[in-house]
Amino acid sequence: MSGVDGTERSPIRSVAVVGLGLIGGSLARRLLPAYDVVGVDADGATRRDAAAAGLPVAASIAEAVDGRDLVVVATPLPALDAVLGAVAEAARPGAAVTDVTSVKVPALAAARAAGLGEGVRWVGGHPMAGVERSGFESSDLALFDGASWVLCVEEDTDLAAWLALAEVLTGLGCRVVPATAAAHDAAVAGVSALPHLLACALAEVGVAGGPLALALAAGSFRDGSRVAAAPPGLVTTLCDGNRDAVVTALDAAIARLAGARDALRGGGSVRPLAVAGGDARRRWDGARAGERRSTVDIDIGLRVRLAALAASGGSVTSVGRTTVDCLWPVVTSGDDSTCVDPGRGRA
Amino acid sequence: MSGVDGTERSPIRSVAVVGLGLIGGSLARRLLPAYDVVGVDADGATRRDAAAAGLPVAASIAEAVDGRDLVVVATPLPALDAVLGAVAEAARPGAAVTDVTSVKVPALAAARAAGLGEGVRWVGGHPMAGVERSGFESSDLALFDGASWVLCVEEDTDLAAWLALAEVLTGLGCRVVPATAAAHDAAVAGVSALPHLLACALAEVGVAGGPLALALAAGSFRDGSRVAAAPPGLVTTLCDGNRDAVVTALDAAIARLAGARDALRGGGSVRPLAVAGGDARRRWDGARAGERRSTVDIDIGLRVRLAALAASGGSVTSVGRTTVDCLWPVVTSGDDSTCVDPGRGRA
Repeated sequence: MSGVDGTERSPIRSVAVVGLGLIGGSLARRLLPAYDVVGVDADGATRRDAAAAGLPVAASIAEAVDGRDLVVVATPLPALDAVLGAVAEAARPGAAVTDVTSVKVPALAAARAAGLGEGVRWVGGHPMAGVERSGFESSDLALFDGASWVLCVEEDTDLAAWLALAEVLTGLGCRVVPATAAAHDAAVAGVSALPHLLACALAEVGVAGGPLALALAAGSFRDGSRVAAAPPGLVTTLCDGNRDAVVTALDAAIARLAGARDALRGGGSVRPLAVAGGDARRRWDGARAGERRSTVDIDIGLRVRLAALAASGGSVTSVGRTTVDCLWPVVTSGDDSTCVDPGRGRA
Repeated sequence: MSGVDGTERSPIRSVAVVGLGLIGGSLARRLLPAYDVVGVDADGATRRDAAAAGLPVAASIAEAVDGRDLVVVATPLPALDAVLGAVAEAARPGAAVTDVTSVKVPALAAARAAGLGEGVRWVGGHPMAGVERSGFESSDLALFDGASWVLCVEEDTDLAAWLALAEVLTGLGCRVVPATAAAHDAAVAGVSALPHLLACALAEVGVAGGPLALALAAGSFRDGSRVAAAPPGLVTTLCDGNRDAVVTALDAAIARLAGARDALRGGGSVRPLAVAGGDARRRWDGARAGERRSTVDIDIGLRVRLAALAASGGSVTSVGRTTVDCLWPVVTSGDDSTCVDPGRGRA
């Protein structure tokens, strides 16, 4: 055990996964060899499929959650209020509770409404993986390999619970990205909600072109419209639950497309958009090209260090007893590369 | 030899490829084992790379084209006028000439301006493959495996030249899709130009979200913005060369995105767009699920049959001495599946 901000940290040994869809099912199966895992789902067929796949399955949330170190709530956002209420009643004092919904401000509000954060410790989470399939039958042991998994750090987040959960997820090969719920929601509006809405618009307009368009649609249409096939409920949650930020992202995208259209109409060219889009995409490709590692002490300065990591888009790659390994993006601008922080890390 | 509309058809044995970028380089290398192939490129380094890869390389267009059965012009659209002029001067009487540019109405106009169609037979072409890379160094023997390759059929197209070229391309494993230049350009506005412009808008807006957005961008952003990395010149040709149809496609996409934004602003939901986009994408997936084959006689009715195939989004999969094998999409609507034509085929 190691003290963090005055809180004791115990490693997580037992986990309840509430909701065995794509994310919950994949996570429960992935954790099973190393942890004492139990799953539960409101749907009887899903419970039977999970049991047939070798997963211990409980009959109720109360039975699943009882005495567990960690509760992962992997239900859709609309069910979160009710499920978190049941979890808060049944969880043991000191248990950590997390979720996997795609918008974090509403999830934080639901957790506060359920009374989590007092005795039972809430850490909002969001794995950046696999939205276009659903259900336990799509669950996949490799779903989280190398994925980014956001764990929210608010001003009052219990860092011992955060670290314990980060230890589990980095142990699965995830990069754990610290962020406030508000910063997360602003960022995903542009890189997650927007691509889903663009994919839907593309699918509709492309297919409206008739049989020849269907026949000629190739790689650019296939990849551009891929996530249009995501369950409408997930896309709706992603957008309706993050209203203001998604409106801002849509406004920005529409402005660029209308600019290209107006240029074409006036005898001009789409070239400025093509150049700017290519530059932006290469900047994203480049953001992963160079990264620097540092090791950060788990001490009373950890909260400030995680905030710096969040601001730079960095991640935690492993959690030890007294230190945390961090990855800081090297941002390239023009000729010289600069590393955003690692400054105050130990190495 | 087999008479088609009064024209003799001779199989193609010798091919000149003018322009050895991604498409021309890949095609020349792919044809090399079975055909007498020569390539030519305006760029000396490309000529040296091609020669080093074992490709016979000519010093000039005139030398490359002289006496060849087929000339494939694989230069960008802006160079087409000049190159087609040089090809028309050097090509032997009866030679077939095709191109690979992404818009077919301007290419047809360039061919007519160069005097092709009188003695030298023009067939506009467009392989639906590989826009986001470029250059001979990216050339790939597998680039056209299973790809759709449009060969234009206008009212005055020489069907013997069309069939000879279709025989070469189906022999490489391509599906040859007949279409008029105008129908092609209308269809690709929605399924090719539009995805490129949406990808560029997505890349710009997503990356503007800063380091955290860069870090959280995952599968939906990666696939949705992939073709933003295409050479700006290709995207510009695709859109500026197909101005009216691309404006129409952009208008339709912007209307859908603005509808979703206005719904969000007014307290409503993006759900209608999510549902419609999912339905459209599944319709595209389904369009390939069921297909029917038929064999069509090469006789004086061929032009009408190719027009029916074009209207249904079908393709030619092989060309024999007296027959053509066709693939007709089975369009699913509601519960029953109907095959668009094959009606008058032999089987």
